[in-house]
Amino acid sequence: MTALKNDRFLRALLKQPVDVTPVWMMRQAGRYLPEYRASRAKAGDFMSLCKNPAFACEVTLQPLERYPLDAAILFSDILTVPDAMGLGLYFETGEGPRFKKTVSTLADIEALPIPDAQQDLGYVMDAVSTIRRELNGRVPLIGFSGSPWTLATYMVEGGSSKDFRKSKAMLYDNPQAMHLLLDKLAQSVTAYLNGQILAGAQAVQIFDSWGGSLSAAAYQEFSLAYMRKIVSGLIREHDGRKVPVILFTKGGGLWLESIADAGADALGLDWTCDIGEARRRVGSKVALQGNMDPTVLYANPQAIRQEVSNILASYGSGTGHVFNLGHGITPEVDPANAGVFIEAVHEMSAKYHQ
Amino acid sequence: MTALKNDRFLRALLKQPVDVTPVWMMRQAGRYLPEYRASRAKAGDFMSLCKNPAFACEVTLQPLERYPLDAAILFSDILTVPDAMGLGLYFETGEGPRFKKTVSTLADIEALPIPDAQQDLGYVMDAVSTIRRELNGRVPLIGFSGSPWTLATYMVEGGSSKDFRKSKAMLYDNPQAMHLLLDKLAQSVTAYLNGQILAGAQAVQIFDSWGGSLSAAAYQEFSLAYMRKIVSGLIREHDGRKVPVILFTKGGGLWLESIADAGADALGLDWTCDIGEARRRVGSKVALQGNMDPTVLYANPQAIRQEVSNILASYGSGTGHVFNLGHGITPEVDPANAGVFIEAVHEMSAKYHQ
Repeated sequence: MTALKNDRFLRALLKQPVDVTPVWMMRQAGRYLPEYRASRAKAGDFMSLCKNPAFACEVTLQPLERYPLDAAILFSDILTVPDAMGLGLYFETGEGPRFKKTVSTLADIEALPIPDAQQDLGYVMDAVSTIRRELNGRVPLIGFSGSPWTLATYMVEGGSSKDFRKSKAMLYDNPQAMHLLLDKLAQSVTAYLNGQILAGAQAVQIFDSWGGSLSAAAYQEFSLAYMRKIVSGLIREHDGRKVPVILFTKGGGLWLESIADAGADALGLDWTCDIGEARRRVGSKVALQGNMDPTVLYANPQAIRQEVSNILASYGSGTGHVFNLGHGITPEVDPANAGVFIEAVHEMSAKYHQ
Repeated sequence: MTALKNDRFLRALLKQPVDVTPVWMMRQAGRYLPEYRASRAKAGDFMSLCKNPAFACEVTLQPLERYPLDAAILFSDILTVPDAMGLGLYFETGEGPRFKKTVSTLADIEALPIPDAQQDLGYVMDAVSTIRRELNGRVPLIGFSGSPWTLATYMVEGGSSKDFRKSKAMLYDNPQAMHLLLDKLAQSVTAYLNGQILAGAQAVQIFDSWGGSLSAAAYQEFSLAYMRKIVSGLIREHDGRKVPVILFTKGGGLWLESIADAGADALGLDWTCDIGEARRRVGSKVALQGNMDPTVLYANPQAIRQEVSNILASYGSGTGHVFNLGHGITPEVDPANAGVFIEAVHEMSAKYHQ
């Protein structure tokens, strides 16, 4: 494999010294970029982009052509695993993801297969190896998956949800069924992420988009427990290099201490946490990734720079910080503002690493 | 005024001893009740229900006929104040609230009047006095308002929003304009809540539905500061009795310490906080209200009772707890399950008050 030319991202996740704070953006390959919209139009639809390794590679690299980002992230969807379990993922225009089949009984869950990463999700493995080859050591490649709880909500609801009515009803009414589903998902996600690591992913992130919708107790039992299980089953060193793991529970700020105990190298933070306070709470155990409110990118360059400066100052000196947004960049953002953000992180962070 | 026959709710908010933990439900007069749907059909639409004191009184009392609730809450909408500022509130079926006019420039904000509670919101004052009379001392009546930040989001967006794009852009781009808007709203809400108190409301709650969408720093500056201002301007004693104030920021669990310093008597908690931990953090300063996940009401009676038992045990012995859901009860809930919930609170809490 080619030597890595920029390893700031991996070093910061492992709390090794860096020259400036590394930065990437969740959903950096996305609809705010005109070149992404062009690729998508060419591919036909969202899942065709994901399922074609050449297209997935093309859009993964697009933001790196524009901005001095410190990491690339595999272009894919969080729902590939349930799709591979036979639920039939599709996208309704303007409606978000939908499944043809949903899961509502213990029998439905018992019938679900554990997908084989190579056989059933080979298109993702191919995308990872293609991107890794095309990156040619420029920056590290991040692999990812949805968390078991997050995947379970889509599988039970059949798509997005405002209040998780069916999935939470199952959790409270039939916890045994929900635990079996989560256990199967934890096994599937472990195999899926290990497949990505073997195919070339140099770090992995677990997106727990909906863990923050749970009560404190339910979060521990139905979301965090299964992420811990995954973390303990991941390949943590590959090709002579550590493979850092990042856990990101949106809305999980109250539970940082227990998330930091789950065995991952870093925690993703949404923007509701003060990152300095988060560092005081868990910074001795894990690196932190985050956490600018993505809506700041709707503001003027001066306001964007001010927010970057505030977050850097709040984190303070030393390594262990990967700058990011607190959630994905949104389609309406002006790409020039994303550039202001990324350059501000590099420029303004040097003094914290002297 | 008639003597209050059940004052558990007011006593718990002031941390005075009670026999059992008082309970009410946010949105207890609502679409899950067939009698509410019948009244609404009779009234024509949602705003006609709110603007007619007889109808507002009728639906306010409906849940009290079914359940042994310890408080009534004024039936109204959080957006009456911006409506009285001339924005033209209306409801699109299935779309939530909308405004005919929105606010986007400093000039728009400068032109906004501060509504007079009696003249411009007389229908709310009439509803309060009508309900208070009809309650006849059965339980206390809660008045309420939206928080300045929450009201501002609707005024700037023109309705509900997923990411508060326009309101947050104004906050970051033009903080001076946003501060002027919030200051006018704080003045308006203070007058509005004092009007409700003079008309008969025996406690008031400020609903900060969208404070939790802000970064930690923005929350302090753009939401909490204005709630503090309101609290300091409220009538705190009326008719020889204290009028407790409850602040409820949904998603505010990370910031409880600073919310508890804002001068209110009690904090509302959503279900993401463990209530026992919240009590350890701020229980010496304020009473706590909450915090069962409303989706538990989709589960079976045994599961509902288990959750009630867990929350009571987490809070522990002694007063200072008003049981509630962590957010409003949803339209799809079976009214029988709400009954199970309310009875469980009374039955299972007695042992914590011996």
